[in-house]
Amino acid sequence: MTDSSTATARPTSLRPWQEDFPNSTKVYVEQDGLRVPFREIALEGEAPLRVYDTSGPLDHDLRDGLPALRAPWIARRVARGDTNFSQMHYARKGEITEEMRFVAIREGFSPEFVRDEVAAGRAVIPANRRHPESEPMIIGRAFHVKINSNIGNSAVTSSIEEEVEKLRWSTRWGADTVMDLSTGKQIHETREWIIRNSPVPIGTVPIYQALEKVKGKVEDLTLDLFIETLVEQAEQGVDYFTIHAGVLLRHIPLTRNRVTGIVSRGGSIMARWCLHHHRENFLYTGFERICEVMKKYDVAFSLGDGLRPGSQADANDAAQFGELEVLGELTTIAWKHDVQTFIEGPGHVPLHLIKENMDRQLAACHGAPFYTLGPLVTDISPGYDHFTSGIGAAVIGMYGCAMLCYVTPKEHLGLPDREDVKQGVIAYKIAAHAADLAKGHPRARQRDDAMSRARFSFRWNDQFNLALDPPTARAYHDETLPADGAKSSHFCSMCGPQFCSMKITQDLRDDEKAQIDQGMQQKAAEFKAAGGEVYQAKA
Amino acid sequence: MTDSSTATARPTSLRPWQEDFPNSTKVYVEQDGLRVPFREIALEGEAPLRVYDTSGPLDHDLRDGLPALRAPWIARRVARGDTNFSQMHYARKGEITEEMRFVAIREGFSPEFVRDEVAAGRAVIPANRRHPESEPMIIGRAFHVKINSNIGNSAVTSSIEEEVEKLRWSTRWGADTVMDLSTGKQIHETREWIIRNSPVPIGTVPIYQALEKVKGKVEDLTLDLFIETLVEQAEQGVDYFTIHAGVLLRHIPLTRNRVTGIVSRGGSIMARWCLHHHRENFLYTGFERICEVMKKYDVAFSLGDGLRPGSQADANDAAQFGELEVLGELTTIAWKHDVQTFIEGPGHVPLHLIKENMDRQLAACHGAPFYTLGPLVTDISPGYDHFTSGIGAAVIGMYGCAMLCYVTPKEHLGLPDREDVKQGVIAYKIAAHAADLAKGHPRARQRDDAMSRARFSFRWNDQFNLALDPPTARAYHDETLPADGAKSSHFCSMCGPQFCSMKITQDLRDDEKAQIDQGMQQKAAEFKAAGGEVYQAKA
Repeated sequence: MTDSSTATARPTSLRPWQEDFPNSTKVYVEQDGLRVPFREIALEGEAPLRVYDTSGPLDHDLRDGLPALRAPWIARRVARGDTNFSQMHYARKGEITEEMRFVAIREGFSPEFVRDEVAAGRAVIPANRRHPESEPMIIGRAFHVKINSNIGNSAVTSSIEEEVEKLRWSTRWGADTVMDLSTGKQIHETREWIIRNSPVPIGTVPIYQALEKVKGKVEDLTLDLFIETLVEQAEQGVDYFTIHAGVLLRHIPLTRNRVTGIVSRGGSIMARWCLHHHRENFLYTGFERICEVMKKYDVAFSLGDGLRPGSQADANDAAQFGELEVLGELTTIAWKHDVQTFIEGPGHVPLHLIKENMDRQLAACHGAPFYTLGPLVTDISPGYDHFTSGIGAAVIGMYGCAMLCYVTPKEHLGLPDREDVKQGVIAYKIAAHAADLAKGHPRARQRDDAMSRARFSFRWNDQFNLALDPPTARAYHDETLPADGAKSSHFCSMCGPQFCSMKITQDLRDDEKAQIDQGMQQKAAEFKAAGGEVYQAKA
Repeated sequence: MTDSSTATARPTSLRPWQEDFPNSTKVYVEQDGLRVPFREIALEGEAPLRVYDTSGPLDHDLRDGLPALRAPWIARRVARGDTNFSQMHYARKGEITEEMRFVAIREGFSPEFVRDEVAAGRAVIPANRRHPESEPMIIGRAFHVKINSNIGNSAVTSSIEEEVEKLRWSTRWGADTVMDLSTGKQIHETREWIIRNSPVPIGTVPIYQALEKVKGKVEDLTLDLFIETLVEQAEQGVDYFTIHAGVLLRHIPLTRNRVTGIVSRGGSIMARWCLHHHRENFLYTGFERICEVMKKYDVAFSLGDGLRPGSQADANDAAQFGELEVLGELTTIAWKHDVQTFIEGPGHVPLHLIKENMDRQLAACHGAPFYTLGPLVTDISPGYDHFTSGIGAAVIGMYGCAMLCYVTPKEHLGLPDREDVKQGVIAYKIAAHAADLAKGHPRARQRDDAMSRARFSFRWNDQFNLALDPPTARAYHDETLPADGAKSSHFCSMCGPQFCSMKITQDLRDDEKAQIDQGMQQKAAEFKAAGGEVYQAKA
């Protein structure tokens, strides 16, 4: 592992995975030489349930990094002299890669379907060949809705160890990708530690590091310097780059009357550069040179929405949608190079305007996956914006958004600590799962139904273990009914035994099933026979 | 104050209101003899903002109860010999009551509009003449979306003082109505203390107390006993009753194949009664007798959804919608008596099935207001169900649901403590406000826009004070930048000064406004003149 000599390599301080997921084990589906991870939840009252799992291999030494799962697959491609390593390139040639087969097993679709979605640009498998440690995953609206968590030090507020722990903490709770937004010192070294220890794709915003290289002088940024930064990060194994190539000179006046102007860091940097030089955005004019780097490694584009709205007032305005049209144009160029591409979206959008965002993105960007930050559905809730943005995230996920960038409770206020990261991830797992249910993902309702059966059978331990956050569910229950006996009691503290509706329902079913049901069926038949008029047995 | 002799009357242990809302004052709009409360938030950078306020008079002694604001209005109606005290009755006669005028000022509509909505049954002003302490509010989809919080002791887990504190704590953070769901001892006395100290309408589920009266033997319940309980509670001043009159014999077999059966306590009690006696629900057969009690006091019906789904699996099924049709039938009967009526709804519903709930309710119940519990959009998140249900609440609010019954983080697990109550209320304020924005309530966006201007101007104190929860917003900010100087700094800990997009935008605007804007406008004009083709200044 390079460049990590100055970081201490103490073992992670996270508590054991097993304590957060009691009765769960990591299992691997082995098929055609692949080992695809799942978490299997053992249940007291029925067969175990397997769920999608992002936590990666456990108990490895951070200094060693994770095992290089994909190394042999990539080695074969290198050996045969490939020059375009993108999954889209292979898919369009008709090839089904190991990554596609892995994803197919993970999601429950056929490998052919996965390949076709990637070939069509409707799905992306972020998989830099220099990040062989990653467990392949897919971002596309036919699949599970994914979530991203952001980590990264700013100024000198956190250490490398803290960031690596936030990474592993994020994936433990379900983050599907992680963006390293570091802007401070040791940016290269921090990233190295993160990538080597990440079982999920890593994204970055390379303009941040480029700006560090010119000591913060925006006007000194150049395409050459930017490309040099891309190569540096691609070599390290970054799987997708946020690039704000859609912010054009003509858009900037459109932001003049906004309440909150430009709220994207990358967007504001590029706007400033454009205005200083009075020249067009070099990320736009140099886009094809950038594509050459991307395909050489298979880094995916996350085309940044530099002009996303930062308030309800600015949502769905001309600046935002003007940039979106340009992102569609850039998607076409990226696809010409077989470079995998998804599109970033807002931000702050009132509920009734969310669908327009999704519809326009699909139309403008030719079906490329959408990746949104929230959106927040009101501006008045600092301290709770993980939730406020989670509402918008669930809704846009239902409409087809493929990946949701989490927001933590500290959004708009400060830097998230580990607990904030967890709160953000859990909120977004809820949003993503709600969207999966709404979209009818074939596997989505299995877990809800298992939970509901556990509720109706008063299997408390199974309820805790099926929860997104088992320790919290158990702790909340134990606050009022701590005794072990309460784990099998046929009521809870909410209503007490006498008022438990589920108990009453079960009693009904158990005691009176035969005779009553017969009578009721007869009544129902009579009712139907009578023409379905409202039955009024005024006894 | 009656029946309160055994409760201690120590002053509330809640910290001063002012500490939770710094820079806020209670103000009253005085008009035509009315004094209508608002909270006015003083801002450092612009004119103060007035917001809807539910916290009621402050600093009164709990033993005295709140001032009887509505007493003189009611006294005049009694003096002239009224027998039907319902706001709907007055509205239908063309009368604009003080309550209607009060609501009109509070919401920003004309009194005539308020009257017409109440007359049509599209809105309800819960206002028992025996609860003169309440500050009139309205539930209807043309108005602010309202939220309800539930309190109430079960078994012997909490004291009267605790329940009164939860009441005041709920209204402090924004609860528009409060339901007292007590089922334990001292049920009458607890309710008395709650009503006398409540500035918001109080709802109950009278079947709980009726069941206590028959020592939990469901089969011993009778209409006479129920009516006696209604009169007792109406005399105390309860403003709305949840009554599960729509659970009919023929519905019960429809729940047989459900995953979670009947999850409403009231619903399961009535189902058990029906099956035991093999007779139709006495709340249904005796509905007109119940109406006679309701109109004498102006207690509103909250027609209970005894067959609401308790899981994603059971959503929108025949049992649920069968009962909904009966609730529509009962609405017609209630309106024949001019009894104000709203309709309760689920529960657990996946996102894509929410709209059908709203559409069917409006059609079946002739436009009567809808009042839903959530709905929860997945079943797998115990510990976070305030959030999970808040997603569904925001969405159904957007579609027209008039009131949202909160859920706390303890839902499905245990009884909420004070902090849980706050978390539930805040989550639902967010959902309700998001719905108000989506519906375009004329006053809704004022606060978002004030917040966004404060953000763009780096007015940190104004941001905290405009937040739904000022102390939390401030505390989160101070965790990373505690110094007082940071409250006026033109950046925050998230990005640091160099990467602050808002600062960059402002610099752009300040420094380069004149020349750049002129140039840009020219470019934009050129672009348009050239036919609007994508402008590609490949320099």
